[in-house]
Amino acid sequence: MNHALRLARRGLGNAWPNPAVGCVILRDERIVGRGWTQPGGRPHAERMALDQAGMLARGATAYVTLEPCAHHGRTSPCAEALVKAGIARVVSAMTDPDPRVAGRGHQILRDAGIAVTEDVGQDQARQMQAGFLSRIRRGRPFLTLKLAGSFDGRIATAQGESQWITGPAARLHVHAMRLAHDAVMVGGRTARADRPSLNVRGFATPRQPVRIILTSGPVPDLPPEGPSHGPLWVVDAPVAEAMDQLAERGITRVFCEGGGVLAASLLQAGLVDQVIGYTAGVVLGADGLPSVGGMSFPRLADAPRFRLLETRRVGPDLFHRWGRLSAT
Amino acid sequence: MNHALRLARRGLGNAWPNPAVGCVILRDERIVGRGWTQPGGRPHAERMALDQAGMLARGATAYVTLEPCAHHGRTSPCAEALVKAGIARVVSAMTDPDPRVAGRGHQILRDAGIAVTEDVGQDQARQMQAGFLSRIRRGRPFLTLKLAGSFDGRIATAQGESQWITGPAARLHVHAMRLAHDAVMVGGRTARADRPSLNVRGFATPRQPVRIILTSGPVPDLPPEGPSHGPLWVVDAPVAEAMDQLAERGITRVFCEGGGVLAASLLQAGLVDQVIGYTAGVVLGADGLPSVGGMSFPRLADAPRFRLLETRRVGPDLFHRWGRLSAT
Repeated sequence: MNHALRLARRGLGNAWPNPAVGCVILRDERIVGRGWTQPGGRPHAERMALDQAGMLARGATAYVTLEPCAHHGRTSPCAEALVKAGIARVVSAMTDPDPRVAGRGHQILRDAGIAVTEDVGQDQARQMQAGFLSRIRRGRPFLTLKLAGSFDGRIATAQGESQWITGPAARLHVHAMRLAHDAVMVGGRTARADRPSLNVRGFATPRQPVRIILTSGPVPDLPPEGPSHGPLWVVDAPVAEAMDQLAERGITRVFCEGGGVLAASLLQAGLVDQVIGYTAGVVLGADGLPSVGGMSFPRLADAPRFRLLETRRVGPDLFHRWGRLSAT
Repeated sequence: MNHALRLARRGLGNAWPNPAVGCVILRDERIVGRGWTQPGGRPHAERMALDQAGMLARGATAYVTLEPCAHHGRTSPCAEALVKAGIARVVSAMTDPDPRVAGRGHQILRDAGIAVTEDVGQDQARQMQAGFLSRIRRGRPFLTLKLAGSFDGRIATAQGESQWITGPAARLHVHAMRLAHDAVMVGGRTARADRPSLNVRGFATPRQPVRIILTSGPVPDLPPEGPSHGPLWVVDAPVAEAMDQLAERGITRVFCEGGGVLAASLLQAGLVDQVIGYTAGVVLGADGLPSVGGMSFPRLADAPRFRLLETRRVGPDLFHRWGRLSAT
């Protein structure tokens, strides 16, 4: 299952609107097929692994990180494909919360006499499906907020100098984070001030993330969609409504890179699921530009709390990742 | 030597104005004496270890984290005591930079026919002597600045609420840090606003740190010196001069706990050797009180840089420790 989960990771940021799934087919303790959800969501992981396995799938065991689909969409359901291929046993990490599946995939397999073991590696699988689960259950994408800056939370000096507070390793790391999200989002002020590229550089990617600018103001001239830039979506709506719209359009994972005003709105609205920090070993002082704008919480207890998931060095900088406490 | 360095650590924060030294005496691969600089700086580590070893010191090997002293002060020099006790070999971690010693300790030993090995574990020993070295070489103490606060560097909400941003584990950790410093320092505003106790609680300590208030304004009524509070020193001088004064009075390690105005002055003056951060998983926004006041660096490159030495979880909070780059 760990192998299947690692394969599933390859689809993160590419598979939307579909979930990123991994599949490994084992026969006599040898891997005969490996698959993961392909860019744009098709083919599914099971289809890819079955095609690889060919005749060797007969009597084999399939490990899948999500319940195989049961509904006829553009392709026939994976559950039926597994049956047809003669798979003898399926080990699955979690039930698909999509109402069109929701246990029916496992049922099709059982009805065909396949032995099904559920919930193996469920915690990791659910973590990987955080975006898909959020879209299905909450009607909004899983949102990661990036806050990079000085030790004291400043993103530029009083004179406006901001290049470079964090180092090249942190910047490369940001591209890896973009890679694993469906869309990269900034506010209008940041878009106009920085004309950010909002694309993945330094890593090969089958699909550039959607560029989202959340603004009611003018939009700067940015490169058109192409091999090195994803689609450009301008959304003019309050933050909560904007997130709903993005989910409707299929987005499961959003990476917000600022600026301070948008970060404050998202936090205030309780829409942030994960915060990642890149902290540089430099102190800029109170006249520097803050990474997060003004928010008004009547009491400290009202401010959303995050729990530390990870901390380590990235180049000369400190990387830290926090998850929302009591995620809804 | 590692054992001796661990013993030396016990004297940090207690041994001033003397260096915190550790000594282990080995005879036939068995430890016959262990010593560390006692509170107030006397007895010295060697004296304590020799007293423990008694007659067993004859022909034994002594490991010392700093060159044995050579000058007649309140006691006779440790180098002579080691000779008298019949020690056969001395392994020493570093030369004492004190001009009254500066190699003469090792010379006394060699002149008496003792085999001397120098610079064993020198890096660790120098790190432990950072305060003593700073006082002798730069005429000022080694200064640690604590910055605790929210993810975005705020120490209180817009309404002034600050209890509690970081958790109890971080607060206990702060007491351990105080324990290892000779003095705890705050600015006048913080002293007047918070009336801080500036003492060590939760750990047994033979000597409470000196409480330093750096201010030209009024000083609040604080508890008198006693078993649970160190001496109270009010220093009215610009920061650089204040540090010189503290070194003259014997202080080797200062722990500064704010507030923001004093932190900014110390950073601006380049007096900060180590910054430690306690970061909580909460974002308070730009109208919160910043942990560091205004500073004016004409260029980003002028701001002092620190390198990450350590990062880990302390309770729910993130602890990170940074050392001055290119310490002078």
